[in-house]
Amino acid sequence: MQFEHTSKQYDVELESVRAKVLEMGGLVEQQIVNALEALTSADVNLAKDVMERDTRVNALEVQVDEDCSHIIARRQPAARDLRMIMMMVKTITDLERIGDEATKIARTAQRIYEQDRMYKPRFNEIKTMVGIVREMLRTSLDSFARLDVSQTLEVAKQDEQVDEQFRAAMRQLITFMLEDPRTISMSLEVLFVAKAVERIGDHAKNISEYVVYMVKGKDIRHTSLQDIARETQS
Amino acid sequence: MQFEHTSKQYDVELESVRAKVLEMGGLVEQQIVNALEALTSADVNLAKDVMERDTRVNALEVQVDEDCSHIIARRQPAARDLRMIMMMVKTITDLERIGDEATKIARTAQRIYEQDRMYKPRFNEIKTMVGIVREMLRTSLDSFARLDVSQTLEVAKQDEQVDEQFRAAMRQLITFMLEDPRTISMSLEVLFVAKAVERIGDHAKNISEYVVYMVKGKDIRHTSLQDIARETQS
Repeated sequence: MQFEHTSKQYDVELESVRAKVLEMGGLVEQQIVNALEALTSADVNLAKDVMERDTRVNALEVQVDEDCSHIIARRQPAARDLRMIMMMVKTITDLERIGDEATKIARTAQRIYEQDRMYKPRFNEIKTMVGIVREMLRTSLDSFARLDVSQTLEVAKQDEQVDEQFRAAMRQLITFMLEDPRTISMSLEVLFVAKAVERIGDHAKNISEYVVYMVKGKDIRHTSLQDIARETQS
Repeated sequence: MQFEHTSKQYDVELESVRAKVLEMGGLVEQQIVNALEALTSADVNLAKDVMERDTRVNALEVQVDEDCSHIIARRQPAARDLRMIMMMVKTITDLERIGDEATKIARTAQRIYEQDRMYKPRFNEIKTMVGIVREMLRTSLDSFARLDVSQTLEVAKQDEQVDEQFRAAMRQLITFMLEDPRTISMSLEVLFVAKAVERIGDHAKNISEYVVYMVKGKDIRHTSLQDIARETQS
């Protein structure tokens, strides 16, 4: 009975950390959505809100890190539980960096709209990119929550789409700048936003790959789409 | 005696992982140096070499991750040893990302020199930036090796220098592009190289902050220079 109680207590602890990781995931998803909204609606207050809320994201990272260390120190996690904990430690690093990218986008929004610039940028490509990376993040967090690797390949493919979109956006911005050099400064702002979104895609992909490590015990980082397919589609 | 033997064996295991982390650190430092050399000397073969060697960096990351998991699973690391292991798990993530940035720089070098472009870029600012981030990385790895936090503040200050250099490079590139729009495409290549170098600085700073966590048990990520000074200069 003693043992069973301890084991249940252990489950409760693990579950609580898992819930915090998912909370952090929901928070950074909202940060992405708000940063884009601030940018496309010229909402400087919302941009400031995103920047302030980043401290909450950071605090959650520190907290989950501590929780994971405590569980390792107090319990003696077996293979699978240990993989779960290591997966969470890595996942929150990527979530925190996604939060950083959202903050950068918000800071750009603030910079663009606080000064009254002559050339208003268009954000169609950025919106499309954000749509994809948001879906990637959701899918990855869902895979994490359900320990399900069936979507990993899809996320990896979406990451390639985002990279392609980024290159297309860059070509387009170069065309704008060549046509009217007065748009150069603003185009660079848009370009760095596109870069931030592209990074968010990379981090979401990382998260989905940690789930494969957790479930299959196999490290598929640094492998090709074919390898990912072989590991996750069987 | 049995216990002492086990404990010594444990030390050997920890030491071996530590050595691998330092090996990985040396490798990515060389990758940065070679990527810059490829860029400034138009050496496409060296650029290819950097890209190929990135697989070695990736392999080391996977290996250290596995080693750390094995040690946690087999031993029951106490507070300080556990912090050491968690520090290593985080450090290699940043080292691997530094390797990625070096690879991006090498890829840019290849792209620039394989096509025969009309406008040859200047890399003075990039060279200065690389000089600083290379020193940051060395200092951080040295802090890691000696578990010494006396240089953490210096690394954080250098990171601010790099950020300032990046902004200065960007202003200069905007001026070039305005003066001669035909330089736009090449200027963007230089800008993304500068961005990659700036990222390398961020990762080096992360590594030095993990050492503080290891030594002081205190998490100073997401804090100000003042906080870092208080924690590390006493």
